[in-house]
Amino acid sequence: MEFKKTKLNTLKRGLKKANYDRDVIHSILDANEICNVAFNIEGRAHVQPINFGRCGEFLYLHSSLKNRMTTALIDSGEITLSVMVLDAIKLTRSAYKHSVNFRSAIIFGKVRELESNEEKLNGLKAIINHFVPERWNHCRHPNLKELNSTRVIEIEIESASAKISDNPPEDKNEDYDLDFWSGTIPVKMICEYPVADEKLKPGVEIPPHVLARVSDQNTG
Amino acid sequence: MEFKKTKLNTLKRGLKKANYDRDVIHSILDANEICNVAFNIEGRAHVQPINFGRCGEFLYLHSSLKNRMTTALIDSGEITLSVMVLDAIKLTRSAYKHSVNFRSAIIFGKVRELESNEEKLNGLKAIINHFVPERWNHCRHPNLKELNSTRVIEIEIESASAKISDNPPEDKNEDYDLDFWSGTIPVKMICEYPVADEKLKPGVEIPPHVLARVSDQNTG
Repeated sequence: MEFKKTKLNTLKRGLKKANYDRDVIHSILDANEICNVAFNIEGRAHVQPINFGRCGEFLYLHSSLKNRMTTALIDSGEITLSVMVLDAIKLTRSAYKHSVNFRSAIIFGKVRELESNEEKLNGLKAIINHFVPERWNHCRHPNLKELNSTRVIEIEIESASAKISDNPPEDKNEDYDLDFWSGTIPVKMICEYPVADEKLKPGVEIPPHVLARVSDQNTG
Repeated sequence: MEFKKTKLNTLKRGLKKANYDRDVIHSILDANEICNVAFNIEGRAHVQPINFGRCGEFLYLHSSLKNRMTTALIDSGEITLSVMVLDAIKLTRSAYKHSVNFRSAIIFGKVRELESNEEKLNGLKAIINHFVPERWNHCRHPNLKELNSTRVIEIEIESASAKISDNPPEDKNEDYDLDFWSGTIPVKMICEYPVADEKLKPGVEIPPHVLARVSDQNTG
């Protein structure tokens, strides 16, 4: 199902790459640990990278009590954030046609600070499981003191758009006869084999949910 | 040499991770292809990922003539952008202490649109060489028609800060006796072996500057 096209999320440039499908946008959100959040401080646009969680149409961020970004987001009640996955660098014969293959999503949302411990725990669960699926079932959950020192905000996705580029390099017709090399350098974010904490209790093995996070070429 | 600490770039939280050294900040900028740019449209903060180039204290972005972000940046005369490199996911016994190792830089700059062809070519050179060092010497440079359909903006870094986290996972004393696994999942952005364009002119080999871009584990 598609996000409704409004003035906010409708892409003006690169229309061939535009996508408003919810599943596509969710899959991009789930493919990166980090989003970049835009917010205003005294009228100036700021941006900050931060990890996040997703549960359906809702995203979650957390911070300490005095975080400037969180305060600005709660005060404004709205958020814009981006998530991008870089897939390849495309080198062409002409400088002009150099580009990248990528998947990116821009999210426009409404911000609400979570107040009850139950809601905060649900938000934190989404954040922890975004790092490593199932991780929430394999760690000690936050106690009251920890919950009281953590702000959790919920973002309801109101509008969103994605851009996806997944094509071979392309030059102008007259450039194909040039002697410059052209091609694609695939780019990948990989998770390597986990390194146990030095203070790990003897006998605790790497659990399956952690091994499942490791990229294929590193399960050695 | 350090960037001067002003109200804009001085970090309030996580002071142990704060860094204002120019070389450190430059190295973070050079370690990612993509930055995230904050800008205002009708008073609402937006964010967009985009590739960029660096030459000393100056960064460069380019776009088509009608790009909304570029127009907003030139109109406001200022920019905030972030670059982040994720290095590891740190899993702890308690949900509360989960975190990541990362290197991130926030840049506050003055924006100037480049007008002369010479300046625009210098900016585009920085952008192309940010993808792959030396690439500018191995492609056809933009002609007048291409230059006329490209806007190039120069960002003078006025203020900047970096945050670096590079530590093992850390739990509260009372949690070390729990049976949960704790450790680090190293994360890496890698460039795989290049794939030649299908229409590549016969006899054109992958040049050394492209091979140099490939990550160590993929030079097979």
